[in-house]
Amino acid sequence: MYERMHILTEADQSKIHSATMDILSDIGINFYEPEAVEIFKQHGFRVDGNTVHIDEDQMRNALASVPAQIQISARNPEHNVTIGDGHLVIAPGYGATVMITQDREQRLAVMADYDNFCRLVQTSKSIDMNGCLMVDPSDRPPEFAHLDMLRSNIVLCDKPFLGSTMSRQAAIDCIEMAGIAWGAKDEIKNKPVMIAIISTLSPLQYSTEMCGALIEYARHGQVNMIGLLMMAGTTGPVTLPGLLALQNAEMLAGVTLTQLVNPGAPVIYGSTSTVTNMRTGSLSIGVPELSMIQNATIQMGKFYGLPCRGSGGLTDAQYPDMQAGIESTLALTTTVMSGADFVLHGCGILGSYLAMSYEKFLADEEICSMLRRMLKSIEVTDERIDLDTIKSLGIGKEYLTHPKTLAHCRTEFYLSDLMSRDDFTTWHSTSVPLLPIVIKSVA
Amino acid sequence: MYERMHILTEADQSKIHSATMDILSDIGINFYEPEAVEIFKQHGFRVDGNTVHIDEDQMRNALASVPAQIQISARNPEHNVTIGDGHLVIAPGYGATVMITQDREQRLAVMADYDNFCRLVQTSKSIDMNGCLMVDPSDRPPEFAHLDMLRSNIVLCDKPFLGSTMSRQAAIDCIEMAGIAWGAKDEIKNKPVMIAIISTLSPLQYSTEMCGALIEYARHGQVNMIGLLMMAGTTGPVTLPGLLALQNAEMLAGVTLTQLVNPGAPVIYGSTSTVTNMRTGSLSIGVPELSMIQNATIQMGKFYGLPCRGSGGLTDAQYPDMQAGIESTLALTTTVMSGADFVLHGCGILGSYLAMSYEKFLADEEICSMLRRMLKSIEVTDERIDLDTIKSLGIGKEYLTHPKTLAHCRTEFYLSDLMSRDDFTTWHSTSVPLLPIVIKSVA
Repeated sequence: MYERMHILTEADQSKIHSATMDILSDIGINFYEPEAVEIFKQHGFRVDGNTVHIDEDQMRNALASVPAQIQISARNPEHNVTIGDGHLVIAPGYGATVMITQDREQRLAVMADYDNFCRLVQTSKSIDMNGCLMVDPSDRPPEFAHLDMLRSNIVLCDKPFLGSTMSRQAAIDCIEMAGIAWGAKDEIKNKPVMIAIISTLSPLQYSTEMCGALIEYARHGQVNMIGLLMMAGTTGPVTLPGLLALQNAEMLAGVTLTQLVNPGAPVIYGSTSTVTNMRTGSLSIGVPELSMIQNATIQMGKFYGLPCRGSGGLTDAQYPDMQAGIESTLALTTTVMSGADFVLHGCGILGSYLAMSYEKFLADEEICSMLRRMLKSIEVTDERIDLDTIKSLGIGKEYLTHPKTLAHCRTEFYLSDLMSRDDFTTWHSTSVPLLPIVIKSVA
Repeated sequence: MYERMHILTEADQSKIHSATMDILSDIGINFYEPEAVEIFKQHGFRVDGNTVHIDEDQMRNALASVPAQIQISARNPEHNVTIGDGHLVIAPGYGATVMITQDREQRLAVMADYDNFCRLVQTSKSIDMNGCLMVDPSDRPPEFAHLDMLRSNIVLCDKPFLGSTMSRQAAIDCIEMAGIAWGAKDEIKNKPVMIAIISTLSPLQYSTEMCGALIEYARHGQVNMIGLLMMAGTTGPVTLPGLLALQNAEMLAGVTLTQLVNPGAPVIYGSTSTVTNMRTGSLSIGVPELSMIQNATIQMGKFYGLPCRGSGGLTDAQYPDMQAGIESTLALTTTVMSGADFVLHGCGILGSYLAMSYEKFLADEEICSMLRRMLKSIEVTDERIDLDTIKSLGIGKEYLTHPKTLAHCRTEFYLSDLMSRDDFTTWHSTSVPLLPIVIKSVA
């Protein structure tokens, strides 16, 4: 099933792997944090200034200690999650700076928005983890905002959460604060309670800040999610196979570093790379190539036996309109069906990552819920085929009033509280036009 | 890839097959057209009044002559299509009676709408076939409307099309009219130029009209698409495994009849079954169960080696809003990725099949185009990985102005003419709010 989408054959995967190893050993990759370079040097890697060269044996040795499955503890143990081994863990959007309002305006996000999103995550049936930087609160000083966000994460929500990767100090702060919540910093040593989103600077660079955060989280046994957003044609090759090789090199270098710092430290592999809008030079995340890269990236992660990250309800639409619905559903469906273990940006994102909206968050949550329903077995058993009922009703009879229907009608089907199933007249008379969507005016 | 969605295991498929054969031999199935019953009787099937009993050997014998691949000729040979063997053929929506306008109103569809949809199909890059009854023209007498529609199909569009199945006479008329277009009726004998959408009356009945049409189309070697829309909990079992067995029995009975009429007559297998909205008793087509049934149905079709039909951009939304985008994309993506050979209702449908809109048609077309892009290979070759360029740019350089980017930037990425990729300010200043979407008022 889903037989149509085989982005990569096994031969393709090997070819991308070979190119990756060529890139890592020949060109190498820059780490702008001296401690990172020192760690590589101590482990016998060839180092030239900030540039670290990695050969296949060194990379394979490091990958051997990566755990295939990660347990992340929540303040409420009922909300613990498992990443890997067929589970699906979804976290909300990340990194937006503005909010889109119902009346088509945008405003800077504030801490009160962040807190509201924490509450929405807490009450969600589909979102497993709280975020960090779901929106960037403009009313907090940038150097301390992560403290406010982590506090809200812990106080307003008892699910696991993301930690800040703004700097090494931010990582240290997050570990200290989480330590307070768990009784002591040592209580969460090698007991994952948060995921850190590490990003490269493509092509082939890790910033001082990201390196520092990676090292601190790895050292404390917290989860590093090694990702990146490479833009084909701008920060990476214009051809997708080239992009897949280059982003693979960047991610594997980061995964390698985590294992040198602390062998067995939990780590997740996965990008959200996409293409450049060649009409404007800007980022395009509502495009089919994003889904194709998602699919191929998850295949490459599985090639190395690593837990995989996918990206969620992504769209370039500026408003929760039909475009937003189409693009977000295509990306989420592909990611989930491709086998992502952990989905970032599961809900809320608008405007190519720059914006969030409450309405979009709720609609994306609905997509996640439907996809979860689709992953559940329909249980083909004799009892559920139920030939007795089929034979007793025979030809031309109705099933609506049969006792079996009455027995199952509340539990067998997915029921949405968000989607309208009303006929036109009811819909028209009970709905109020609140959210105008727009089509572009033709000049 | 797409490893997560395995609705049916091989054991599940066998179990459904066994239950199906039990239903067909024990209960049997009613054909209300005497000629159909007579055909079954002549071929040695056990018949009791209108009820035909089919055993496994009889069914297998009939299925043995079904062609695995179907060539459908268009008036313009460049638009010929192949159904089966990995091709994806998409046709527009079918059966709507009303049009939804931009200002949230509905009106009865008229012949001018039908003609406009013919023109949209003709100019579409993603829709391969023209419909029949895309909308039901209220300004034509019902008994002759198929003549007008077929005329428009032939005159306004040179792609292959659907034929009417309103009655045996309608089928005869369509064959006669197509004969005129191809020079003579004999010119299209056993040369498929149209597909007839045959539906059962669940549970376990074929109407006089549908039988008559099926027989005429099969006799002339035109394509019968044997389908149905079973509603779990109303016209079929409330449990999905029961529904899968019962709908399979209905479809296989129809497929069997086509082969008795004309062994080797082209036929397509596939339902658009879904669940009943248990809050109202009405049809729900925007639900995840529809996608699950699509996936399982296509698996069963492949189990029998039959060309498979899937359903397209289906939604219960009354307007091209975010709900419409989410539901239509989920259904279309699942259908296409499940391996459907022929997709009906590819674009245009709103309001649980009752409505079409031009805006929805164009947006669905965009979904189809994106899915087609995703089916194309990314061609992982050394040339396309292009290590030379990656090495020449090395660390920290930009790809935007590299000659390779300039060489590929117009062809490598999917470019949409419909979706907005503008930043917020541009979008806000150049777009006009035309299509209000609604959220339900809370009483």
